[in-house]
Amino acid sequence: MKKRVITISREFGSGGRYIGQKLAEQLGYAFYDGEIIAKVASETGFSKEFVEQNGEYSPRKTLFSYAFVGRDSHGLSVEDRLYEAQVNIVLDLAKKGNCVIIGRCADYILRDREDCFHVFIHGTKQEKAKRIATLYHMTETDALKRMKEMDKKRSIHYNYYTERKWGDVKNYDITLNSSILGVEKCIEILAFACK
Amino acid sequence: MKKRVITISREFGSGGRYIGQKLAEQLGYAFYDGEIIAKVASETGFSKEFVEQNGEYSPRKTLFSYAFVGRDSHGLSVEDRLYEAQVNIVLDLAKKGNCVIIGRCADYILRDREDCFHVFIHGTKQEKAKRIATLYHMTETDALKRMKEMDKKRSIHYNYYTERKWGDVKNYDITLNSSILGVEKCIEILAFACK
Repeated sequence: MKKRVITISREFGSGGRYIGQKLAEQLGYAFYDGEIIAKVASETGFSKEFVEQNGEYSPRKTLFSYAFVGRDSHGLSVEDRLYEAQVNIVLDLAKKGNCVIIGRCADYILRDREDCFHVFIHGTKQEKAKRIATLYHMTETDALKRMKEMDKKRSIHYNYYTERKWGDVKNYDITLNSSILGVEKCIEILAFACK
Repeated sequence: MKKRVITISREFGSGGRYIGQKLAEQLGYAFYDGEIIAKVASETGFSKEFVEQNGEYSPRKTLFSYAFVGRDSHGLSVEDRLYEAQVNIVLDLAKKGNCVIIGRCADYILRDREDCFHVFIHGTKQEKAKRIATLYHMTETDALKRMKEMDKKRSIHYNYYTERKWGDVKNYDITLNSSILGVEKCIEILAFACK
């Protein structure tokens, strides 16, 4: 079955977003990343800045601390409401037409759709640090710190809302090490795989 | 870099061995699985049956019980000696020429070679059970039990000897869900990916 919706989860610095963007161009699919953030921000009343900071990243460092955040009369925290809004938007986007969606727990949200293809992009520490250092103009030491922090936040966010483990091979139809394969080759492999 | 040695780790019933065999044929590479067993058996004095039962499977159910097996004057159990023999054979086979090696912790043993490509094949419970039931002429209920037992043994064996986690995405350059992609597509993707 041809895959209409491709979800890409990725380690920070692995080039997963770039891979998704180029893949979408190649396939003639829509591409959603920042667009989702903007949509969430405008439709649900959250500020764009709040969504950028919390849409995919846990604002707190441990699962334990989730128990103490403020909750509304439905028992939902502000992060929970943002997550719910994102779930609806991801479901809508997937219905709308062929697309590539980056992050946002989309692999989990769309797990029951047979026309989806779930991808995870990872890499070696050294290569990811080099990429981050170049992209964000920082030292490799700072890049390593940033990488650790970002991946920790992504995994806490994902694990909390999906009750799955971020990066667990079972969640994905294909995983690729972009440091070994190179980002261009990853795009080619994915274009070939989801045909 | 063209990949000269392809290691394939696989869940029981995922078709990983078949994928490796067909991939080797397609690439004109040597294929090692039963051959390794025979080589180990004849060169190290272990019987073929012993190697078949212990070459990739922990004969005991928990890591804890490893502490109590009989050890020789070097502190090595009979399983340790078999593992050491297999390490040397895998290293020799990789030196010999282009090949596909199934299981035997080959991804770990050859982790420092840059011309290696490390693959993990997994699948959904239901699809793997169907495949096992057909191949081994058993009911799907029995296939599920067998699957659980075999994967448990493989993972204990791998985790014990490599100090890594079997099936952890970090260990592999590519992982494929053969239940979603189909075994033929997996062969095509791998042939394309390791070019």
